Amino acid sequence: MILEKIDQPNDIKKLNNEELHQLAEEIRRFLIEKISISGGHLASNLGVVELTMAMHLAFSLPEDKMIWDVGHQAYTHKLLTGRKAGFDELRKFGGMSGFPKRKESDCDSFDTGHSSTSISAGLGYVMARDILGCTNKVVSVIGDGALTGGMAYEALNNAGQIKTNFVIVLNDNEMSISQNVGAISKMLGNIRTASAYNELKNDVTATLAKIPVYGDRMIQKIKQTKSSLKQLVIPGMFFENMGITYLGPVDGHNIQQMVRVFREAKKVNGAVLVHVLTKKGRGYLPAERHPARFHGAEPFQIETGLPKSRRTTPNYTDVFSTIMRKLGDRDDKVVAITAAMAEGTGLKRFANMFPERFFDVGIAEEHAVTFAAGMAAAGLKPVVAVYSSFLQRAYDQVLHDVCIQNLHVVFAIDRAGLVGSDGETHQGLFDLSFLTSIPNMTILAPKNMWELSDMMKFAVNFEGPIAVRYPRGTAYQGLHDFRPPVEYGKSEIIYDEDGIVLLAAGSMVKVAEQVRQTLKEIGYNCSLVNARFLKPIDEKTISEIAKDHKLIVTLEENVINGGFGEHVLRYVNETGLDVAVRIIAIPDEYIEHGNVDLLKKEVGIDAESITKRIIADYILLGENT
Amino acid sequence: MILEKIDQPNDIKKLNNEELHQLAEEIRRFLIEKISISGGHLASNLGVVELTMAMHLAFSLPEDKMIWDVGHQAYTHKLLTGRKAGFDELRKFGGMSGFPKRKESDCDSFDTGHSSTSISAGLGYVMARDILGCTNKVVSVIGDGALTGGMAYEALNNAGQIKTNFVIVLNDNEMSISQNVGAISKMLGNIRTASAYNELKNDVTATLAKIPVYGDRMIQKIKQTKSSLKQLVIPGMFFENMGITYLGPVDGHNIQQMVRVFREAKKVNGAVLVHVLTKKGRGYLPAERHPARFHGAEPFQIETGLPKSRRTTPNYTDVFSTIMRKLGDRDDKVVAITAAMAEGTGLKRFANMFPERFFDVGIAEEHAVTFAAGMAAAGLKPVVAVYSSFLQRAYDQVLHDVCIQNLHVVFAIDRAGLVGSDGETHQGLFDLSFLTSIPNMTILAPKNMWELSDMMKFAVNFEGPIAVRYPRGTAYQGLHDFRPPVEYGKSEIIYDEDGIVLLAAGSMVKVAEQVRQTLKEIGYNCSLVNARFLKPIDEKTISEIAKDHKLIVTLEENVINGGFGEHVLRYVNETGLDVAVRIIAIPDEYIEHGNVDLLKKEVGIDAESITKRIIADYILLGENT
Repeated sequence: MILEKIDQPNDIKKLNNEELHQLAEEIRRFLIEKISISGGHLASNLGVVELTMAMHLAFSLPEDKMIWDVGHQAYTHKLLTGRKAGFDELRKFGGMSGFPKRKESDCDSFDTGHSSTSISAGLGYVMARDILGCTNKVVSVIGDGALTGGMAYEALNNAGQIKTNFVIVLNDNEMSISQNVGAISKMLGNIRTASAYNELKNDVTATLAKIPVYGDRMIQKIKQTKSSLKQLVIPGMFFENMGITYLGPVDGHNIQQMVRVFREAKKVNGAVLVHVLTKKGRGYLPAERHPARFHGAEPFQIETGLPKSRRTTPNYTDVFSTIMRKLGDRDDKVVAITAAMAEGTGLKRFANMFPERFFDVGIAEEHAVTFAAGMAAAGLKPVVAVYSSFLQRAYDQVLHDVCIQNLHVVFAIDRAGLVGSDGETHQGLFDLSFLTSIPNMTILAPKNMWELSDMMKFAVNFEGPIAVRYPRGTAYQGLHDFRPPVEYGKSEIIYDEDGIVLLAAGSMVKVAEQVRQTLKEIGYNCSLVNARFLKPIDEKTISEIAKDHKLIVTLEENVINGGFGEHVLRYVNETGLDVAVRIIAIPDEYIEHGNVDLLKKEVGIDAESITKRIIADYILLGENT
Repeated sequence: MILEKIDQPNDIKKLNNEELHQLAEEIRRFLIEKISISGGHLASNLGVVELTMAMHLAFSLPEDKMIWDVGHQAYTHKLLTGRKAGFDELRKFGGMSGFPKRKESDCDSFDTGHSSTSISAGLGYVMARDILGCTNKVVSVIGDGALTGGMAYEALNNAGQIKTNFVIVLNDNEMSISQNVGAISKMLGNIRTASAYNELKNDVTATLAKIPVYGDRMIQKIKQTKSSLKQLVIPGMFFENMGITYLGPVDGHNIQQMVRVFREAKKVNGAVLVHVLTKKGRGYLPAERHPARFHGAEPFQIETGLPKSRRTTPNYTDVFSTIMRKLGDRDDKVVAITAAMAEGTGLKRFANMFPERFFDVGIAEEHAVTFAAGMAAAGLKPVVAVYSSFLQRAYDQVLHDVCIQNLHVVFAIDRAGLVGSDGETHQGLFDLSFLTSIPNMTILAPKNMWELSDMMKFAVNFEGPIAVRYPRGTAYQGLHDFRPPVEYGKSEIIYDEDGIVLLAAGSMVKVAEQVRQTLKEIGYNCSLVNARFLKPIDEKTISEIAKDHKLIVTLEENVINGGFGEHVLRYVNETGLDVAVRIIAIPDEYIEHGNVDLLKKEVGIDAESITKRIIADYILLGENT
């Protein structure tokens, strides 16, 4: 095993060509085996085995700075920098992260997670290098999908101006997570199909130089030749035009070829983009065939590629998917928008049924939201389906383009709450805070699967900006007999007793039920209210329950700062209600990766921790069973 | 006067060419006269007089949809759509907005204010038109500066794919507010200088068509010809390459030429970009010469272009400007970043002194923040100077790229609080809420000009993400004897009595002083604490003051949801302190344009309103003088 000899950065440089090829195979086998057990990002990592090796051959870590966009494709990088053992605890609580982390290794230059940040961060490193008088190289790796994100373009627009070396590697696998969209994607596709592209480019360019400035007429032919012309001259020119030297395309599975090009790239005085063609899932047939399924994979059987355990209960995404088809069927004005997450958000089925009313805009949350605002202004009913942590990208667009005009845009916010093994960058713990600060916004959260459907129906028929937030994972099927109609601003009283009242938001209703059960068992009376509306809060019900309860406990899966509980407390304080308030929420800190149940315990929002806190609080208040 | 006859949309279509030219002159005179009295955006509006007229001739309002990016250049549009009288109350409270507003006119299709949104919104209108089976045209106007914003590119990337008409007008004046930056800007410059560009493009293109696919060698010549080649073939091709038909450049002061091109553009099946060359400030020499000064102008003397009243006291921006020069001088690692706001943020002087440590990244807040994060990771001390409302664009970058890694990026947040005549889109009323929700963030606000300097010094020598927020306008010079050193997490007790304590954030310290004065006069004891740190709040001092006060009144110039007061209240509630808390903040609504003092009264954060509320609250608590 050659992999066994790779313990340190730069160990790879000791290998000859034959050993390098063997190492690539060993890494592939290692990744497939480990991820089949732990789950994780497989397809993207299999695609960049050789690319990563070539980069480690051409650059020197940790002196040179290597920045991985998104970062879920950095497994080989982790292997080559002494973190082999970490794969046994990959993405587990306390174990190795699935993303680059500066605190894990000095070979990780910048933490990533969200898309399209690597060129900006890399350019920061480049400028710092020059100002500090250092000579290290900086290389940012970005996928073709990430190139659809606006901030990548903002960064390219700046990188094109510099006169000092900065290597950008475009990892082009024709995909982001699923099929890529947009003009840039099409353009890159054109480069791939032009097999003799490089020679052609050179020839055409040289020939052009000979054309006298005021050449002949022949204007008629322009139209016919435009498209073929683009294929020849223009693709790399998109970057060249921005002032960035373009090299490529290069075979992303040919280590020697890549190393040669990277060595050339390092000599350029300015930003240089190396266009590398890779194949997602390379070397593992099930992943090559179904790269989306093997994007973030559950543990699977290596022989078949099938998941080890088959999910039998629907998750919230499935429920959303089903109701969207129904809503689309009932109302021609309902349209759906996703930022490169058709599968993840469950919109694929809507897309198949109503292709003309489905819009995948690429990894472009900002555009997605303002685009939806435009459609709402024109009379449609747009539903933007988006993960909580990615909606952070469009905070200004929600505030400035949707809510000032009070436009009826529906936000279906998936992965709101702890998401688990993806960690800090992907936890959906801020949406309640950042959305509540925005005037005109209405926010709902369902307690179970049926309520998600009811709330989506309500939202689509509402007027004004409205968000429905629901967590990752299995949809709660309890409390199915509790299904009163959704009414604006009204919470749902599930159990009405006295003493303690649990005022729970969305996913926390299920937890609150367990808490109540335990409290009842040891002799406390306890009511349970499903908040339903997190903005505006149901002031009437709060005033009512304050009368015959001593303690209101708010529960939410969101950071405490600016969340639901603070607003309830403020109302109680403003109105002078005679009731104590305790807020259960996520503490003001980033929550790392790990199993969601473990994480809940860790931050104290599991049933047991909550029960203990409530009893302690209640006794402090001078109350007892 | 022809302008007198223009009362309705489309009235302009009744005019002949000669009358049109006369109208353009009359509009110019009208704008100069009105803005010389009211203040407002002059240079940008003078630049688009003919462009707006040509658009109104080629399109039909309100059926066709016209979307103005940023929107401060829509004065002529307002004039041509029946809002002449509104200019007497332009940007005044209750008067006409300086930006497009759907509630003002059905000819305003989309409210704008921040940059780079118009293509997204326009594309939404286009898709809605097709889905709803309408036939109207949609035209989005975007400046060359706004094109440096990532979301414009996200939108272009999508627009390039459509098969239905969408007209994008690129209003190219070689500037955003000040001089434009970046590769795109350079490229547009190349088009402008190539006077015979159109003919050249055609000739070269046609000639290219004749080149056999595998032409001759001549590879040597490539390098020399590259740059001239770009000037010839590539500029319009940047857009064509994205699938967008490029027409232009067109003289933006030649109405007839523009109308002809717009009529052609309306026939294109797909997105079409019309490149229009205009001159900021056109027709008024002082504005042509100093477009930045006449961007958002104060009332001025028409003959000289000089402001009617000369500012004698420094504003917070001046104070920031001065301290930044000092900080840059003392520490080579201090670098400054702006998103196209070198003048506005006061960084111009830093830029002149330390050009190699100054970065204007274009209208690209997202990139600006992650770029700064990269520099911080590499060991520099970046200061991002940004307006509060524009930082909204980079919420995710602050959360995801700066704060997870706990990087030492300093945010100098100008225009935090009510900004006045720009209205809803520009009020800086959310930063406290959205920043407080982010773990690892430290937030400060100075009470007066000296404290801003002290806080900037503190921030630059801090470790970790840190923001200093300060308002628009004159820097407070009171309380100059109160200047204890800035210590982490510590507030400043200015007056220590008993009874009521005013706990004021930043700009509200001045107001709190007035409130205290009045309260004292009518016999109430009243303490005053300058919060200084808004995150983390100074728990120790709050606990202390709770002992000998009955009522804590928090004061802040930020929306109430998620702001400073809620966090103080939560602390008091959590710790069971025996003190009442009242929160004075901006209500949960958008605040329109108008004089800042008027607005403060309107929302109840002026000294008089606050005093009344406190007295009422205090009496309710059973307390009295």
